[in-house]
Amino acid sequence: MATAGKVIRCRAAVAWAVGKPLSVEEVEVAPPKAGEVRIKIVATGICHTDEHILEGSFPDVDFPVIPGHEGAGIVESVGEGVTSVKPGDKVIPLCLPQCGECAFCLNPESNYCLKSHLSEPQNLLPDKTSRFTCKGKQIHHFLWVSTFAEYTVLPEYAVAKIDAAAPLEKVCMLGCGFSTGYGAAINTAKVKPGSTCAVFGLGGVGLSVVMGCKAAGASHIIAIDINKDKFAKAKELGATHCINPHDFTKPIQEVLTEMTGHGVDYSFEVIGRADTMTAALASCNMNTGVCVMVGELASGSAISIDPMLVLSGRTWKGTLLGGWKMRDSIPKLVSSYMEKKFNSDVLITHTLPITKVNEGFELLRAGKSIRTVLLF
Amino acid sequence: MATAGKVIRCRAAVAWAVGKPLSVEEVEVAPPKAGEVRIKIVATGICHTDEHILEGSFPDVDFPVIPGHEGAGIVESVGEGVTSVKPGDKVIPLCLPQCGECAFCLNPESNYCLKSHLSEPQNLLPDKTSRFTCKGKQIHHFLWVSTFAEYTVLPEYAVAKIDAAAPLEKVCMLGCGFSTGYGAAINTAKVKPGSTCAVFGLGGVGLSVVMGCKAAGASHIIAIDINKDKFAKAKELGATHCINPHDFTKPIQEVLTEMTGHGVDYSFEVIGRADTMTAALASCNMNTGVCVMVGELASGSAISIDPMLVLSGRTWKGTLLGGWKMRDSIPKLVSSYMEKKFNSDVLITHTLPITKVNEGFELLRAGKSIRTVLLF
Repeated sequence: MATAGKVIRCRAAVAWAVGKPLSVEEVEVAPPKAGEVRIKIVATGICHTDEHILEGSFPDVDFPVIPGHEGAGIVESVGEGVTSVKPGDKVIPLCLPQCGECAFCLNPESNYCLKSHLSEPQNLLPDKTSRFTCKGKQIHHFLWVSTFAEYTVLPEYAVAKIDAAAPLEKVCMLGCGFSTGYGAAINTAKVKPGSTCAVFGLGGVGLSVVMGCKAAGASHIIAIDINKDKFAKAKELGATHCINPHDFTKPIQEVLTEMTGHGVDYSFEVIGRADTMTAALASCNMNTGVCVMVGELASGSAISIDPMLVLSGRTWKGTLLGGWKMRDSIPKLVSSYMEKKFNSDVLITHTLPITKVNEGFELLRAGKSIRTVLLF
Repeated sequence: MATAGKVIRCRAAVAWAVGKPLSVEEVEVAPPKAGEVRIKIVATGICHTDEHILEGSFPDVDFPVIPGHEGAGIVESVGEGVTSVKPGDKVIPLCLPQCGECAFCLNPESNYCLKSHLSEPQNLLPDKTSRFTCKGKQIHHFLWVSTFAEYTVLPEYAVAKIDAAAPLEKVCMLGCGFSTGYGAAINTAKVKPGSTCAVFGLGGVGLSVVMGCKAAGASHIIAIDINKDKFAKAKELGATHCINPHDFTKPIQEVLTEMTGHGVDYSFEVIGRADTMTAALASCNMNTGVCVMVGELASGSAISIDPMLVLSGRTWKGTLLGGWKMRDSIPKLVSSYMEKKFNSDVLITHTLPITKVNEGFELLRAGKSIRTVLLF
């Protein structure tokens, strides 16, 4: 390979400090070291988690940093010892790695990995150095993925090889948002055919939950948002009812309980607010209901609940990337996408060049986009 | 029957007001109306929930009231239309009924019943009258059971017929405490063979959780209490490790995580304190752990947690009477007891006549008893 072993100069959207817009810069990307893979990113989605970085509410981020974690690309070069991918392979970089060796990876019921950022910050690669520099300064990685760079470097165990025919500008969604929501319904809640579901929040992840509930055979899918503009797409994807809490004077949990008799079988909070989390918990059946927390609250925040909500028999659980063991599952999800088992394309409302990254964030903040995909 | 249709005068321990000792009085017990059963209570345990009545922290209790809910007895007479039991049958009165007709009873995954006190107070029988009077005053029922009365009246669907050979002074424990703890492990957590469990609180219910974990094949059962005197019995019943949080300077969840590598597979809170509930949640594996809330907090209290504890993949759930459909399951549990599949007898540390009911409560408050059984 012409570039193998060499530093690559390319574009990247850099976050220099909390609260500042991203700056598209020329950056240097060092070659992959042993066990690492350098990927040419072709497309990357903008997810709310990226917004949390800019807001300073995502834990353990070091600035300056290159955000982005929902990308797809092509392997440019590989470091010594890498065997699972080769230059030219289409891949999705994983924000939740799968080392295959730790206690979690060896547990078939877990999708966590001890190499993940919840065990150790992923602001630098495993050897504690960065592959990025810009204007003479070291730039930090974000969860190792940093897909807002045209070229990025990750450990091999955080890279999933996908179908060579996959359209990268579409399947990038499978790196985070779609898989999280769809898996929350399929894997975490294990929604049963004929059941009743409520989905709080109809962003890209929430709509993916709706798709997962439909795929699992739910008979009633109640979609909830304060923005009515989101209802048409929710119905297109399988929602049987769409409700706006602002249309009621009583709490939304009471509305849902009345609509369903005794509450829904499964509720999903896909916003990341304490009040909607307690509402989602209270909305499911007091004895058999399952509430899945998908939305992220700011780190260090607290949520206060009446213990009776749980004590009466409800189950409250969280989902990490939809419960998928990422390196095993992402290639299979891409295959399912290719077989048209689901249509995640409808979530992509905007496509912009990387130079318009800040415009993409403005669309997200204004609630005008579901997913904006950036292209290099 | 000589007494059928007549008012019975007998003894009962009456709670006249919050914070007052019980008073053993002569009470009048009216005959059962249609669909009701009058039971001669032979033995009744004293459970912490009874203490919560006296403290005024159990919701929706009306004074004066006859507490007690962990009893066993013999059917004295039945009202019109009662077919499932007849005078002379040994029975356990159920604090969680099973009407067999409501949406919950018809759901095989639920053990709730719409006739339960969480849907409607059970301070009076379904016709909104009491069968108890004392000194000319109406006395309220407690969850319909009121087993601190020598004779008590319940709807037929809150009575379970048990093996005629069952020792009532022993199997009364199965009416609440034992079944709740044992079922929390077997039904609610569904403890798997070879797994690791932590049980917070070694009262009668906590020790029953230990028995349930052992019966389910757990390889490590870590019993936790601040009273070391409880460790010998916990070990006898299956605990593999006993630890006292006061022996450590670091939080107990850190101690448990270090002991087990990444936290236990299942944790159980059997105390009813907000701080131990969050500790129990934090003690189980961050991605696959299941925390079961068994202890009752005072009604209206709140519990504050870091949402990351759940978001990383933990499951938090509550148990209602151990998840048993009571009328179906209690007779089977009594049969298992008779077959010596478990030995709940070891939980009974004291036996007292009903006249010494307040002494029984003193033993409970002092932490000197596991279960005191009162005999009429």
